[in-house]
Amino acid sequence: MERKGKFITFEGPDGSGKSTQMARLADHLTALGFPVVATREPGGTRIGDQIRDILMGLKNTDLQPRTELLLFQASRAQHVQEVILPHLEQGDLVLCDRFADSTLAYQGYGYQLFAIEEIKPIIAFATSGLVPHLTLLLDIDAELGLRRRKGHAEWTRMDAYEQEYHQRVRQGYLEMARREPQRWLIIDASQPPDQVQAQVHLEVLEWLERVGFAPRA
Amino acid sequence: MERKGKFITFEGPDGSGKSTQMARLADHLTALGFPVVATREPGGTRIGDQIRDILMGLKNTDLQPRTELLLFQASRAQHVQEVILPHLEQGDLVLCDRFADSTLAYQGYGYQLFAIEEIKPIIAFATSGLVPHLTLLLDIDAELGLRRRKGHAEWTRMDAYEQEYHQRVRQGYLEMARREPQRWLIIDASQPPDQVQAQVHLEVLEWLERVGFAPRA
Repeated sequence: MERKGKFITFEGPDGSGKSTQMARLADHLTALGFPVVATREPGGTRIGDQIRDILMGLKNTDLQPRTELLLFQASRAQHVQEVILPHLEQGDLVLCDRFADSTLAYQGYGYQLFAIEEIKPIIAFATSGLVPHLTLLLDIDAELGLRRRKGHAEWTRMDAYEQEYHQRVRQGYLEMARREPQRWLIIDASQPPDQVQAQVHLEVLEWLERVGFAPRA
Repeated sequence: MERKGKFITFEGPDGSGKSTQMARLADHLTALGFPVVATREPGGTRIGDQIRDILMGLKNTDLQPRTELLLFQASRAQHVQEVILPHLEQGDLVLCDRFADSTLAYQGYGYQLFAIEEIKPIIAFATSGLVPHLTLLLDIDAELGLRRRKGHAEWTRMDAYEQEYHQRVRQGYLEMARREPQRWLIIDASQPPDQVQAQVHLEVLEWLERVGFAPRA
């Protein structure tokens, strides 16, 4: 089963501009003739929507952390099999807003409830071993990211607590990037959006050329 | 966190009389003054029921095998955290109709879709590493078990195919029992039900005495 497509993921905290930048890149690459498919976790499959209902159910305050992690992986498995792999097999360029690295960054490094080595085999099973060819980390200082998301609201003690959590998430992302430098591309997301956009487009186009992935004739 | 209780599981194919025997044992031990809690997978938790709705949904023919396995583990994680562990912590004798070994026997050995070593870490996560103190295997020849379940219906080519599958499940159970003889107790379920019952009660009572688990005063 030859996978001719390429799989690019976007990671980083909310407030980093990740989703906006991915949408802009998708438009740009589509205009250049690349066979782009843009998707996001948890994926929008029929089954995934039913799992999402459990995860988001307001009454489900009794949801255990292990149950939650396994439900996210179940939804991911469906997304990989039903959407991502079929598109990669037909040679598309699949862009995905968050993927398995988010589980490691948030549930692993952030909450510190489970050891990274305990989560990894579950992710490997859910993804059928699929690893992104390229991952863009929209990196931003934890305090700055949080202030962006809060807008002009007052800074509270809760925010300071939350900042520590986001600091651990950021360090987790940076550690993963250090361990697999050939896969990760770190983008400074504190720059103005247009500068971030210019850098993302430039670096991704260079990468596509380097790996020999050309637009369709 | 000291676990004072004991955890006994019942395994074997449908048609082995497993559920009936567990119910009879629960009644017998309760009458003797043991603090018995009888439960079954997928567990009857609120969250588990919602997961069950996805697994059993007639429209969900697009459910992927990996998604299915992860959903079963999510339900198990909830059952372990919400029901089994709390009862073990308060010193109860928890009897469970099917547990993690069923996943290994059916999804692993039976369907052969996934390697046993690939499934084990996911089960370890879902169960928080909980392993039964004692597992009763109600063992029965695959063809005999199938004929029991079918009643007097005619034997078809499909049954012969199914028999091979159940043969693999049985061999899987027997292999697990061989690898951990101190945990497994193999009961010949082809005997008349009353003989099976007598053996189960005798062996479990001997085991409880051996591990020093006494009825409540």
